[in-house]
Amino acid sequence: MVDPIVVENILEQVQQLLEAGDVHQATEILRSLHPADSAEILNRLPQELRDRVVQELDVPELADVLEEMDEDEMVEVVQHLPVDELADVLDEMEPDMAADLLGELDEEQAARLLEEMEDAEEVEPLLAYPEDTAGGIMNVPRHMLRRHMTVAQAIQFLREHYEDEHELFHLYVLDRFRRLVGVVSLRSLILARPEQTLGEIMQTDVLTVPPEMDQEEVARLLARYNLLALPVVDAQERLLGIVSVDDVVDVLEEEATEDIYRLAQVSEDAEIFNPIPQAIRHRLPWLMVNLGTAFISSTVVAQFEGTIARVALLAALMPIVAAQGGNAGNQTMTIVVRSLALGEIEPRDAWRTLRHQLAIGILHGLILGTLVGLIAWFWKGNPMLGVIISLAMLGNLTAAALVGVLVPITLKVLKVDPALASGVFVTATTDVLGFALFLGLATYFIGWLL
Amino acid sequence: MVDPIVVENILEQVQQLLEAGDVHQATEILRSLHPADSAEILNRLPQELRDRVVQELDVPELADVLEEMDEDEMVEVVQHLPVDELADVLDEMEPDMAADLLGELDEEQAARLLEEMEDAEEVEPLLAYPEDTAGGIMNVPRHMLRRHMTVAQAIQFLREHYEDEHELFHLYVLDRFRRLVGVVSLRSLILARPEQTLGEIMQTDVLTVPPEMDQEEVARLLARYNLLALPVVDAQERLLGIVSVDDVVDVLEEEATEDIYRLAQVSEDAEIFNPIPQAIRHRLPWLMVNLGTAFISSTVVAQFEGTIARVALLAALMPIVAAQGGNAGNQTMTIVVRSLALGEIEPRDAWRTLRHQLAIGILHGLILGTLVGLIAWFWKGNPMLGVIISLAMLGNLTAAALVGVLVPITLKVLKVDPALASGVFVTATTDVLGFALFLGLATYFIGWLL
Repeated sequence: MVDPIVVENILEQVQQLLEAGDVHQATEILRSLHPADSAEILNRLPQELRDRVVQELDVPELADVLEEMDEDEMVEVVQHLPVDELADVLDEMEPDMAADLLGELDEEQAARLLEEMEDAEEVEPLLAYPEDTAGGIMNVPRHMLRRHMTVAQAIQFLREHYEDEHELFHLYVLDRFRRLVGVVSLRSLILARPEQTLGEIMQTDVLTVPPEMDQEEVARLLARYNLLALPVVDAQERLLGIVSVDDVVDVLEEEATEDIYRLAQVSEDAEIFNPIPQAIRHRLPWLMVNLGTAFISSTVVAQFEGTIARVALLAALMPIVAAQGGNAGNQTMTIVVRSLALGEIEPRDAWRTLRHQLAIGILHGLILGTLVGLIAWFWKGNPMLGVIISLAMLGNLTAAALVGVLVPITLKVLKVDPALASGVFVTATTDVLGFALFLGLATYFIGWLL
Repeated sequence: MVDPIVVENILEQVQQLLEAGDVHQATEILRSLHPADSAEILNRLPQELRDRVVQELDVPELADVLEEMDEDEMVEVVQHLPVDELADVLDEMEPDMAADLLGELDEEQAARLLEEMEDAEEVEPLLAYPEDTAGGIMNVPRHMLRRHMTVAQAIQFLREHYEDEHELFHLYVLDRFRRLVGVVSLRSLILARPEQTLGEIMQTDVLTVPPEMDQEEVARLLARYNLLALPVVDAQERLLGIVSVDDVVDVLEEEATEDIYRLAQVSEDAEIFNPIPQAIRHRLPWLMVNLGTAFISSTVVAQFEGTIARVALLAALMPIVAAQGGNAGNQTMTIVVRSLALGEIEPRDAWRTLRHQLAIGILHGLILGTLVGLIAWFWKGNPMLGVIISLAMLGNLTAAALVGVLVPITLKVLKVDPALASGVFVTATTDVLGFALFLGLATYFIGWLL
């Protein structure tokens, strides 16, 4: 069901059925799949064929499938639905997903849909939070249990209210001001005696998060403490909602992809089969930025045209100095960016991090500089060439460590994602400095090189 | 409790207490923390101080803390424990974690510990599976429920067997050959009437995985289908164990870090404050490999020494061609590597991927080539220089797309992690080809450039 090859085959089959006009049979196939798989197939159908299937699906089916899509995909699927049908679908969806979809629509359309919806009061409060925060991924629990309730009463209550609830992990016990006073796991509910009260079996030392916490941080808390769900509370400790582990697994995937793409200077929204104009929008701006820095280093090299005209070999060796600096700087930067993302270091650790990475950079510079110096010497029979390239390497690898630490930490302090732009600064520095150091030293000692 | 700054402060406080000889007070502080936080503090204490605290902790406390560590860290902590005490700790740990720890010790020591352990039969079967597979991260469920059991009987059974169980998400219903016939969620157990049988309320269409499946793939299945746990079965559909979502959240973090580090050509084991000799072992080998490829492109440039001596300006422009190819190739490669990791493409999609990325590469080449050509023309007043650099850019960006797709897909077919070595090949190609194309064309048309 899950194998990409199988999904591919089903997609082909569905597409052929739709093209042959057999919408009924195509829809039956989608119904037989897990909603996550139907969602993938719907996303990959051409718009026109997709609309035909969407019309055939009933409200709960459509809600299930939409919940497996990201925001852009949801909007594509629902754009041709009439308002009243879409309102029904939104009522059926998990409130956090419904809020994400509403947040993508224009304000007027969203307002009209909220008016049409029956459960608007579950969704509306969620619209206040940005979608990448705890508030944006939480759901509002439908129960308010009290500490004097017995286990038997609580089970009775759940039977009445949670027939069809996906997201029941824990029970939340509130006081009369809606403040969270404790949590009861389903496990302890099962293991308790029916006459015990929730107050007796609840856990009171509960980790909570504020609604504005970044979703990535929420995900890491759940991961670090092996939790199934985290309650979101306001400043008065009133329960606002619950973030559950299944929402968060997707967050970790998304955030990792975002970091990987940003480090490679690709827009975080890139996908492998983006239409070509979109793919170019995701990548060309970054190539342009790099072109700018490449021209800067080009003008640096141009300053030394006279030296290069006399010792053309320098042109062959100078990329080595720049490339090694770039690679070492990229290593340091990546470790710093990832450690910042994982919360292993904070900007206040800048000095400690810098000292440590500078030591590594200087050692790399000494080792690689000596090696390259010896190779250059024996290759070209000129010891001075070896000395010059060694010194340039040492200087450039030291600088690489410096920018590799300081650029991402500075961006973090400025509240810019360190993964986003660090690479440009690091490469620009190691290129310019690599060329300038090597060619500058060569110009100074040109008498020894001729 | 969670804030890195707070952990830092507690670490300092604990260290000062230990240095002052107050082991008791230091241990009390660790006891008051979540095991995940105590684990971090223990890991960051110097070995000698850590050993003092470890001696003070009792068996269940030590087990809790060890479960929060990775394998290397566990070994460091337990290395000075006597065999009988360590066996008790292993008995207390989750079997999958105990198996991970035993797997890190030498065979003789592991055999002796298994002999000493009481619950060795829960751990021993797990040792057969590599630790990064479903078998390596699963736990063996202690229950074998049958379909004719009633809900009331099942609850009674759980009360007797699961007093102290962290990992109870679902109940697994087996037939008399231990084959998995259905799953009952805790939610549906609570919501069912006491006299219903498990056979009536169980879900029979259950996704299962084989023990040898890679942990990353298991993690993605759980994420895709929003599952809390996945049963691991053998070829006869007999239940071997359960992988639960909290194990898997850590897996996703680890695998993302691994990919990010490998893409930056840093060993996947790197950590920000690795001791310097270790940090150099994580990074220097990759710098050496890159040095090799840098020397190859250097010898290519050296072939054109004559041309450069006559038009030294070429040395200033040639890094632009190489750098733009390198950046574009790195973009393509990263998207392909990540899409392979996420299962969005398979090697069989090579041709489709290649066509798509080649189109993007050629368009980038045309746009950037034209731009760079115009700049070079107006900067140096020589239209032929513009034509040459445009053509070199077009060629190099096309090649970048080609290697950016083919290298990672080839590595995947060869069962090498595409994140691991793709960068070296891509950069080597775009450097060598960038220099060769640009300087080759310049040599051919040298008459127009003088």
